[in-house]
Amino acid sequence: MEGVGVDHLADERQKARFDVEEMKVVWAGSSHAVEVSDRMARLVASDPAFRKDNRTMLSRKDLFKNTLRKAAYAWRRIMELRLTEEEASRLRFFIDEPAYTDLHWGMFIPAIKGQGTEEQQQKWLPLAYKMQIIGCYAQTELGHGSNVQGLETTATFDPQTDEFIVDSPTLTSSKWWPGGLGKVSTHAVAYARLIVKGQDHGVHGFIVQLRSLDDHMPLPGITVGDIGMKFGSGAYNSMDNGLLRFDHVRIPRDQMLKGVLQVTREGKVVQSNVPRQLIYGTMVYVRQTIVADASCALSRAVCIATRYSAVRRQFGSQNGGPETQVIDYKTQQSRLFPLLASAYAFRFVGEWLKWLYTDVTQRLQANDFSTLPEAHACTAGLKSLTTSATADAIEECRKLCGGHGYLSSSGLPELFAVYIPACTYEGDNTVLLLQVARFLMKTVSQLGSGKQPVGSTAYMSRAEHLMQCRCSAQRVEDWLKPNVVLEAFEARALRMSVACAQNLGKFSNPEEGFAELSADLVEAATAHCQLIVVSKFIEKLQQDIPGKGVKQQLQTLCSVYALHLLHKHQGDFLSTSCVTPKQVALANEQLRSLYSQVRPNAIALVDAFNYTDHYLGSVLGRYDGNVYPKLYEEAWKDPLNDSVVPDGYHEYIRPVLKQQLRNARL
Amino acid sequence: MEGVGVDHLADERQKARFDVEEMKVVWAGSSHAVEVSDRMARLVASDPAFRKDNRTMLSRKDLFKNTLRKAAYAWRRIMELRLTEEEASRLRFFIDEPAYTDLHWGMFIPAIKGQGTEEQQQKWLPLAYKMQIIGCYAQTELGHGSNVQGLETTATFDPQTDEFIVDSPTLTSSKWWPGGLGKVSTHAVAYARLIVKGQDHGVHGFIVQLRSLDDHMPLPGITVGDIGMKFGSGAYNSMDNGLLRFDHVRIPRDQMLKGVLQVTREGKVVQSNVPRQLIYGTMVYVRQTIVADASCALSRAVCIATRYSAVRRQFGSQNGGPETQVIDYKTQQSRLFPLLASAYAFRFVGEWLKWLYTDVTQRLQANDFSTLPEAHACTAGLKSLTTSATADAIEECRKLCGGHGYLSSSGLPELFAVYIPACTYEGDNTVLLLQVARFLMKTVSQLGSGKQPVGSTAYMSRAEHLMQCRCSAQRVEDWLKPNVVLEAFEARALRMSVACAQNLGKFSNPEEGFAELSADLVEAATAHCQLIVVSKFIEKLQQDIPGKGVKQQLQTLCSVYALHLLHKHQGDFLSTSCVTPKQVALANEQLRSLYSQVRPNAIALVDAFNYTDHYLGSVLGRYDGNVYPKLYEEAWKDPLNDSVVPDGYHEYIRPVLKQQLRNARL
Repeated sequence: MEGVGVDHLADERQKARFDVEEMKVVWAGSSHAVEVSDRMARLVASDPAFRKDNRTMLSRKDLFKNTLRKAAYAWRRIMELRLTEEEASRLRFFIDEPAYTDLHWGMFIPAIKGQGTEEQQQKWLPLAYKMQIIGCYAQTELGHGSNVQGLETTATFDPQTDEFIVDSPTLTSSKWWPGGLGKVSTHAVAYARLIVKGQDHGVHGFIVQLRSLDDHMPLPGITVGDIGMKFGSGAYNSMDNGLLRFDHVRIPRDQMLKGVLQVTREGKVVQSNVPRQLIYGTMVYVRQTIVADASCALSRAVCIATRYSAVRRQFGSQNGGPETQVIDYKTQQSRLFPLLASAYAFRFVGEWLKWLYTDVTQRLQANDFSTLPEAHACTAGLKSLTTSATADAIEECRKLCGGHGYLSSSGLPELFAVYIPACTYEGDNTVLLLQVARFLMKTVSQLGSGKQPVGSTAYMSRAEHLMQCRCSAQRVEDWLKPNVVLEAFEARALRMSVACAQNLGKFSNPEEGFAELSADLVEAATAHCQLIVVSKFIEKLQQDIPGKGVKQQLQTLCSVYALHLLHKHQGDFLSTSCVTPKQVALANEQLRSLYSQVRPNAIALVDAFNYTDHYLGSVLGRYDGNVYPKLYEEAWKDPLNDSVVPDGYHEYIRPVLKQQLRNARL
Repeated sequence: MEGVGVDHLADERQKARFDVEEMKVVWAGSSHAVEVSDRMARLVASDPAFRKDNRTMLSRKDLFKNTLRKAAYAWRRIMELRLTEEEASRLRFFIDEPAYTDLHWGMFIPAIKGQGTEEQQQKWLPLAYKMQIIGCYAQTELGHGSNVQGLETTATFDPQTDEFIVDSPTLTSSKWWPGGLGKVSTHAVAYARLIVKGQDHGVHGFIVQLRSLDDHMPLPGITVGDIGMKFGSGAYNSMDNGLLRFDHVRIPRDQMLKGVLQVTREGKVVQSNVPRQLIYGTMVYVRQTIVADASCALSRAVCIATRYSAVRRQFGSQNGGPETQVIDYKTQQSRLFPLLASAYAFRFVGEWLKWLYTDVTQRLQANDFSTLPEAHACTAGLKSLTTSATADAIEECRKLCGGHGYLSSSGLPELFAVYIPACTYEGDNTVLLLQVARFLMKTVSQLGSGKQPVGSTAYMSRAEHLMQCRCSAQRVEDWLKPNVVLEAFEARALRMSVACAQNLGKFSNPEEGFAELSADLVEAATAHCQLIVVSKFIEKLQQDIPGKGVKQQLQTLCSVYALHLLHKHQGDFLSTSCVTPKQVALANEQLRSLYSQVRPNAIALVDAFNYTDHYLGSVLGRYDGNVYPKLYEEAWKDPLNDSVVPDGYHEYIRPVLKQQLRNARL
């Protein structure tokens, strides 16, 4: 996307056997999406106000203040340029720094939209849209994360004053983690146990004002602050993840979000007329965005590692010639190219989830809840799978960059630190896989009952075949056939689920069995989710994909994705007798030959992500490959290099060298 | 190791079925080691000068200056207290902050000892021991890491002046990464190509003075600086990893380390009389310390995650009672306990490597080089295996702590950031495994020749048996038998090596085959190294281990270590037909039941590491388990909480809320 100066990777780009511009469209989803992204990315990259190369060198306070500045500036630009919602969202994306606005737009507003009545929406949304109030989403507590139903904060209805009294009865009930809470938010959607007439009606959302709109001071009864430093030197330290304690804070009755339950003036608790399944619709939406984010983060890391692998040379010099590019080593390829393929795989499964969300929403509106459990399990599983794989992949990409990957200027430490919370937020990844497993066990148990498995579990209806089929791969080329691959993955997933179900049957207490076998269940759920990703990639290839050579590249990547999983999990495939050791060896051989096909296209395949150097934020991943002079240049910017003799020399180094420590002030 | 206040983990400690004090001795190696560690750990923990809880909040400059202070202060204490070398080294260990002194003592001095003549040692070592000079080890360059023979820096002999001219001919020849180089070191052992009369004699070490001993200014021709921020907010940012360029810097001829080659006054290059194999002895030494470090880092992470898993409760509340401790979940156990077992496994294999180093050194002194290649391969492989596993494990432990693991106060982000370079330095882990593979292929090729494989490859002499044996495990209990486990691991390792050797044979060009199959070769090398760790654990158990229940605990951990590897790599075991799917299932069942045996002992097993709260540096891992109040307390220390209304409110938040952005200065 850049184009000044010498392009050190020009030769690499000429090797590509497909049309990069067409691939950009496939990656972005449409020419329109390419155009908007392009425009917003350049807007950010060209504006010094959005500079981010110094962020790892700033103190916490300066970093945070700088983020406040960027957020305000971005908001002004959004209004000045009259950006659409889509454009504004892309703009924030390319600014690439966690900020309170993420939660305001991404959680606070959606919570009111999803759980508020029309009346409540009319009151609060205009204020929020204009940012006359700034909100956050206060759910997790110091002692309570995954188990939302275990939250301790209470909201007790006081019929005398027609108010709720919001309270934090214990230290562990302190709200803890909400982004934007610590220093910025004026309001929160806070989750608390609804108590009416001494009875506990479970956890619900309440709009609570936290700070004065005049002077930003916390309101009476509110204790609020930042929870402190987090992983990395920049990363989420630009965000004021906060803590919050309520000391009998009173709010009007109509600030309870009434989507699920309502409390009348008289203190009667009544069901609202909105089906509670709608909440699951929101969950599907949020998790779909997380899967999309995974493909972004992964593709960034892969882009950096791929370009640098083509720049870096090590060993293999012959007759004094240049050394070998590390991207030419099979060990490098066998670690890097599966991640490149995963980036595309996650992109496409994310696209499909977007469709699934629309589908679910339409069905919900038509009061059809039949596909909801399957959609819910599917998104939970894919959230878990893609975020875990991406977190690991970023670190793997860092290692693939050798020593220099450890420098902040490589961009990879930052990317790792900012990404990994995705494995925990919106559902801990292990907890989510257990939910998937529970759904799979239910599906298996109903197989004989006439109830047909739907959506991503439809393959289970062919249980009889899949339990006894034998993989037909006899030659290396057979592993390129989508139906051969798909059947192997289906058989493996089904057999692992069925094995779990059979083992569960040996326990008299099913819950005890589920607990005892949970590690196996997690593996079965993983196998099911990997099947989904593989099958959606294959489905994507059945679509009409224009552009010279584009489809063929994607076919190669699809095979790489599937066969590297088969290799990595060969134990599953072998122990369930889905494939033979001989077939595993054939698949492995095919995989090696696919790497050779990826090699000449590798640089163009990461160019297709269309990232600016500003967004990538990596000296190693520069578009022009001009790595070494820029690394050298960057180094001198470190504050330690402000002076040749370091601060502290006279107090702490000279006395050592001159054996004068005894009287030094240390 | 602490003992004030209420112990929230007291109940856990009472569950243990073994004598913790005896286990401390096993872990530390001797009662003497326990005593010294105890004393040094308390010395550091009780001295406010060594405070480290604020380090993630400091700016780079302040962090660095603080490290200079600690290093000087520690040096003064070492002299005041007349500490022995062992005590001083433990003291530095517990200070737990990378500093220039690590390289001075750990690389600069050993390099002179290992590669200098007696005369050179007599000149330089006394200066270094008193720290009248401070040195670093300048080997890697901006463009050259693993391939030492590819370094570009030159040292050209000038017969006119009897000097070497040290020069950095290109940008990529800039020295890059050496710790302590950037701001502190007065001297370096710098590696450069020796050029005499136009002829290149390969890479050798030269003692070069970098800075004036009067005012610390770089000497003429020397450009030196810091390479900038690295991963994490504290971690290695306390270290001045540096860059260095030489512009025709002249040094006296006798500052070339003459261990391998010497240049005479007349410019004749002569072999020194020290066998060059000695250099490999040093490598064995350094890598042995890295394996020991791995068990330290891993045990710290495991200690934090285990204690917090006993404190943290989530889900499973019955009748309003407390929720379930997360350590009771099988999913948690199946991820955590193998890491606990690995910490012990790495500890024992590290102990054995220490013995190996002594053995190799004695043989070298007796001119017996026969075991050197095997010892070299073995240490390279174990360095790779243990550091990769530890890096992954630290991050896994962080995830096992849920959201709170992401807080700096958990200690885990710091530990990860400071540990991961171990996967790259002293040999990139993949490059090292390829060296092991090369050695294995050679060993396999010589199997029929009468040359007996020695040491860690001795099992290969039973190739005939191992190629066709069948695992005898028929019941769950069989997997507790050391000989059953060992044979399975031996058969797997051998069969993978043999399969690689056979596939290599299909290539007409062996080097091409090695390159093409390198990913498989890495897997074969890994299998071999895992076998070593398992077998050394089993050997340890054959020793006399006193103390109530101690040996039994170690037996359990040994089985956990081996069987979790068998599960993780079941694909290897199955595809080589070393075990059947049925046997894999039995092993898995045994593993589950072992977890139940570890569970009551888990806290005591991490207590046996004997770490102070200061050294652990983790609120989550506190000895007393008093996690939540301390997390809350820590949060308020963040600089962002200095004021209730944050710095930046008036400039960047208020204008947003009040719709007055247009005229704001942003």
